[in-house]
Order: sequence, then C-alpha cells, then structure tokens
Amino acid sequence: MSGDPLVEINPERVLGDLDVLRAMGAYKTGVHRPTLSDDDMRARHWLVDQLTRLGHRAEIDGIANVIGFAPGDGPHVLGGSHLETQNHAGWLDGALGVVYALEAARAVAASSRFQGRGVDVIAFADEEAHFGSFLGSYSWIGELSDDTIASARDRTRDLALTDALAAAGLGGKSRLTMPPDRYRAFLEAHIEQGDWLEAQDLKIGVVTSVVAIWQYRVVVTGMQNHAGTTRMAIRRDAGVAATRLLQAIEQTFPSVAGERSVWTAGRIMLEPGAPSIIPGRAEVLFQFRDADPDVLRQLEQCLETRVAAENESGPCDVHLEVISRSTPAVMHETVQRAFMMATETVVPGRGTMMPSGAGHDAQNLARHMPTGLMFVPSIGGISHHWTENTSDDDIVTGAQVYAEAVARLLVA
Amino acid sequence: MSGDPLVEINPERVLGDLDVLRAMGAYKTGVHRPTLSDDDMRARHWLVDQLTRLGHRAEIDGIANVIGFAPGDGPHVLGGSHLETQNHAGWLDGALGVVYALEAARAVAASSRFQGRGVDVIAFADEEAHFGSFLGSYSWIGELSDDTIASARDRTRDLALTDALAAAGLGGKSRLTMPPDRYRAFLEAHIEQGDWLEAQDLKIGVVTSVVAIWQYRVVVTGMQNHAGTTRMAIRRDAGVAATRLLQAIEQTFPSVAGERSVWTAGRIMLEPGAPSIIPGRAEVLFQFRDADPDVLRQLEQCLETRVAAENESGPCDVHLEVISRSTPAVMHETVQRAFMMATETVVPGRGTMMPSGAGHDAQNLARHMPTGLMFVPSIGGISHHWTENTSDDDIVTGAQVYAEAVARLLVA
Repeated sequence: MSGDPLVEINPERVLGDLDVLRAMGAYKTGVHRPTLSDDDMRARHWLVDQLTRLGHRAEIDGIANVIGFAPGDGPHVLGGSHLETQNHAGWLDGALGVVYALEAARAVAASSRFQGRGVDVIAFADEEAHFGSFLGSYSWIGELSDDTIASARDRTRDLALTDALAAAGLGGKSRLTMPPDRYRAFLEAHIEQGDWLEAQDLKIGVVTSVVAIWQYRVVVTGMQNHAGTTRMAIRRDAGVAATRLLQAIEQTFPSVAGERSVWTAGRIMLEPGAPSIIPGRAEVLFQFRDADPDVLRQLEQCLETRVAAENESGPCDVHLEVISRSTPAVMHETVQRAFMMATETVVPGRGTMMPSGAGHDAQNLARHMPTGLMFVPSIGGISHHWTENTSDDDIVTGAQVYAEAVARLLVA
Repeated sequence: MSGDPLVEINPERVLGDLDVLRAMGAYKTGVHRPTLSDDDMRARHWLVDQLTRLGHRAEIDGIANVIGFAPGDGPHVLGGSHLETQNHAGWLDGALGVVYALEAARAVAASSRFQGRGVDVIAFADEEAHFGSFLGSYSWIGELSDDTIASARDRTRDLALTDALAAAGLGGKSRLTMPPDRYRAFLEAHIEQGDWLEAQDLKIGVVTSVVAIWQYRVVVTGMQNHAGTTRMAIRRDAGVAATRLLQAIEQTFPSVAGERSVWTAGRIMLEPGAPSIIPGRAEVLFQFRDADPDVLRQLEQCLETRVAAENESGPCDVHLEVISRSTPAVMHETVQRAFMMATETVVPGRGTMMPSGAGHDAQNLARHMPTGLMFVPSIGGISHHWTENTSDDDIVTGAQVYAEAVARLLVA
C-alpha cells in the first residue's frame, strides 16, 4: 500500500459473510434467490440481524428494502446494493456490494476516528427486476407509486408482488424514504460483469457514468404467403428484410460507435413462424448503450438511416418504434475522486475510470445525492450465470478500497 | 372452343356446390374448417349425400376419407382432392378439386358415351396437416400405420386424432385402401396458390412434377452474456451469426438456383430472447424447393458452403441438420397430355406446363397409378389466407378442362 489507510477491514469476515449468503439459495456454484423467495427473505433477515448487532437501527420496510441506520449525529454516508439474484445466477451480483457496505460500517464503527459519524447500509429490493424495474431504489427516493406495486407481477413465476410481500410478512408495512440531507454520498460496489478490468490486469474500476440504454422495436410488415408457390421475385418476406436490416446495422454501426458502445438484437420473431410459410411480419428488439449523448444520437441516426434505406429499396414496410431512451447517469466527481484515491492507497496504479454498461441502483440515487459506483473484476467477464466469479484476493482488495473511500468521505 | 368437347358440365352447379361448401365454416370471405371439426364433418356428409344421389356407393371411412365408387364394370378414373381447410383460410383450397371431380362424375354419368365407365370421387382427410402429413392419401395407398394414427395430435387444438375420429362417429370404422387395378388414372385439380398463371394471363397450369422440399435446421451456438457489459470485440452473438448466414444465403442462392427455385427461412428463434441478453443460441428453420434433383443438390452444396464459411470466419459454431429431403413427384405423361388436350379444346393457347411448388395428395398417388395435377389461377397468388380467391369464369373453365381430361382418359 502507498499512504496509510484511514480504516481497517477484516478480510476473513468479508469472505465469511459472502459464504453465508451464498448458502441461501445455493445453485451449483451460484445462487438462485429471486426477490421475496424464502431464501431471499432469509438473506434480508440475516442482514437486519448483522446490522442490529452492530448497533444500527435496522428493519425491512414495506417494499422489502433492508435499511440500517447507524448511530451518531455527525455526517453519514449510505452504502449498499441488492441481495436478490437473477434466476439461477451468480453469488456476487448484489451481495458483494451489500457485504462491502456492511464491512465498511463495522470498520468505521470500530474506529475512534469516526466518532459520531457512520455508514448506513441498504439492500434495495428487486434490482434484478423480477417484479419491476429498480423497485427498491425508486421507493427509497420517493418515485414508486402504490399503483405500480399493486399491478406488479413476477416475470417468471405466477405471483403478484402484493401477494409475495404479504407472504413474506411485509403486507401493510410502510415504506421508508430517504431522509433528506442525511447523507454526504451514496457508494455502491459491484462486480464488473464484463472483462475490461481482467483484460487489462486492473483491480478497481471507478465508474464515470452508467451508460444510457436506448431501446427500439423494429416491426417489418411483408406479405404472408405459401413458401412453395410464391416466386422469389414477388415475395415480400419480412424475415429477409429484417435480417438484411440487422446486417446493415452490423456493418455501419462501428463507424459511428464510441470505443465502448454496444448494440444488441436480443429477440427476432417471425410470424407465423412456420417452416412452409413466408413470414408476413417480423419483430426485432434492438438496443444500444453508450455514456455519451452525442454517440447515442449518432447511433440512433445511423439506425434511422438503415431503416429508411430498407424502406426505400426493399419490398417490406419497416417501422421503427422507440421503446425507451434513458439518460446517462453521471457519477459525482467527489465520490469518483474518493474511490480513485482509495485505490491509490490500497492498490496503486491498478485502478481505471470506466463507464458502466449495466444499470445499477446508483443511477437512481445519483439524481438525489453525490453518488459513486466502483467495480471489481469478473472472471471471464461472465455474469447473470451461475459460473460468475471473482478471486478472493480481488474481493478483499475491493472491500478495502470501498471502506477507504467511505472513510475519506466521512472525514472530509 | 376448338374441337368438340366429349362431355358437358353444368357451370351453375359447380359454382353452387362451392357456395354450399363455403357456408360450412364461413370465416370472413374464407373458411375455417379444420379436419374433423363439426363443419368439416358436415362437408363430408354433404359429399356422401351428393354421391349417393348420383348412384355412387359412398361412405366416410375410418380415417375420414370420403370415397364414392361409381357403378359400371368398365374403366374408371379416380378424381378428388380434400375438404378440410387450413385454420381461417380460403374457400377453394381443396374444395375446388373435390367439386370438379363430383361434377365430372355427374357429367360422365349423364352421358351415354361412357356406358359402364365412371369417375370415383375421393376427398382425402387432413391434406392440410392438422393431425399429420397427408394422412388420408397415405391411408388410401396403404402406407399409414395404426401407430401413426394412435399418436397423432392436432397441431393447434389440444386434441388426439383418435378422440376426434370417435367424436365424429368414425371410431372403430375400418379404413378403405385403393382397389388394385381399378383405375386408369388419378386426376387432381387445385388452385395454383401462386401468381404464375395470373401474371401470364393463362387459365390452366398442367403440372409436370410436384417439387421436392429439402428442409434444414440451422443451430448456431454462441455465448450468452450481458448486453451492457460485454464488449463488441469479444461477443459470440448467435443472432448476429445467424442473420449473417441468412444474408449470405440470400446473396449466393440466386447464382445456383433454377428459374422456379424457392427458399425460405420460416422461423428464427433466439435464446433466451430477452432485450438485454446477448443470444447464446439461435435456431433457424430453412427450406428450399425445386423439381430438378441437380438444382436441389447445388442448393444444398451452396448452403453447406455458407455454413462452412460462417464457421471459419465467425465466432460461433454453426451446425446444419437435415430435417427431410423429399423426391420430386413426376406427373404421368398420359395424364399431362390429357389435361393439355382438354385445355386446347376449352381455352386454346391458355395452358402451360409448370411444376407445383406446393405438396398435394397427387404426389402420393403418383407412386401407384398414372397421376395428374392441374391448376387454375389464384388472384394475386394468395393462398392459406381468407382472401384467397379465383374468378367465377376461371373456376368454370377449370371445371370444363378437368371433366374433358377425365372424359379423354375414360374413352381412350
């Protein structure tokens, strides 16, 4: 290390906590812990217990957010992430950021240096979108309506959110919103879920902004017809038009994309989808992501140009529908600097600034307080899969950097 | 007309019969009459009734084939098609060929010229493949096993074939197979289902052969990953590989295809099919059709070359699986000539020889007796859709040509 750290964490306790959580819903080497499942509630109660033992005033609120308020009248920071997982997914996605915040809270509480100051710890419910989109963090910042909760249903289980909350013992509980002016900052840590850090042998990624996602539905209308009797020359095959458009996108996007732009056609659906019928309709879900609004606009313009070209030269009608256009969520400079200086203290020269290609609760918090997000390496860049992993050394390094950044913001 | 016709049909009766059938399962301007539905059974009983009145020995057998045997010890021909329709489809696909055969049988029976000779009429069950593949004609030629019947289920309704047969009053009935040596020929008439006749202002298509269909499943294996955090450079996107392959096929197939070759990717399925997940697997159903075995082999070679090229240059594994390779069914020269001469008698100069891009029961019968297939124009080439249509004039012309060809074969 270069420079003396302000705070000391307990590496074995960090790894031990992660092992405890890993056992709740274990699936192969990963975890299956959907929001409000029995295993998920066990994890939330475990966190309440840990926070209570530490002297925090902790509870699970009416949307299943776990929040622990640290004692003291001095400055506080808020730290955390989420506890539920995607179905049959990894053990660190979410849990890592919660355990880092818990360990930082313990380390701060144990040091006389931080008298009267503390780390509140939060585990946002349903960041993984089983029932909705960032329900827990939206609730915390006061942007979630009761109507949204009333109509929310699990994407993969036949289950209403209200029924799941009631079954978890949370029916009728009130929701807690962020106390105004309590926090100097919110800090979230997460696995990278990509291979950028690993590829460059770096240990810490300090996120500059969470990229925006622009999502589109491309609907191609052709003419459904018999695949045996309809000559090629008169066909209006919606599938052929859709694949031609997608290949044109693959060929033209690189020239207008930024260094870390990504684009994906996640779904292609042909109707009627039968082997002997010429598709009369095709629907494509297409999205791209970047942190730079100029790049986003260029990519959209390129997409529109390709659609127009297909409409002009092809036999089908192509309609481009915007599903959503989010705004990049810029992380706060003060928190970025705290993460970078902490990295220089713990692992000098092994940190980098980078955008986040994935969405995180930090993007919601960023609209309400100084917010930062840091990454640790993901082995092979794999995530949302049970093989997701990070080395113990990297996990511990991340915990040290995170606690050090928290400490710097508290003493500033 | 040039030359005197051997037989006279009643145009109003042809159009009237088609109107009667059209009312059984009417859907918009088309018909919804799935195999063994109430409307389908009404149509079959109607046909038995018409044949019985004409003096035929008629019945519905254990697979729901309607067969009417004409009296007389002299030569006979067999004529017919099918009565059920695709779901929510057209009024002429099938019904036209049955009504033509019925009218030819009436016209022959009414003329003293054909003493002792006659036209047996058949309506094959399930040509439209609700429960299987050409079940009725396979049964008639003795190539349908009881096991196939026992395991057959409706593609779109939750219904076993055996239950449907029992509900239709056909449970336990025996199936009738073709009497050996009874027939000089089988003649089927059908709407073209393409636009070839209409485009050239022709009235009759005499089919040379029913094209072969070669069907494939293309399975692309990539790597499923997060659509936000996975850089473009390291992606193995199965959807991108599949669309690139399909576009390569579109660009190279024309150079090896025959004049009337057709090829179709009827289904593209990406897994998991979510907007924010890079597809890890893609499956494409692909088929091509031609009447020339050499062309079929060249198309397959081209397909294999494109797959190999994608495997060599792309990041995914592409596997080509043959689902089926049928053989072109050549129509008998004697019947082709009878159709052409009948056309010259009824509408001189308005007939053409052509392959059939669609499959028909005639392809099964062709392996057992001299068989012919003729087409009348389809307006706009539309079929398998409720807007399917043919002008009354063309319907009547077709009925005259069909009956004339039947007559020529009977008196030969």
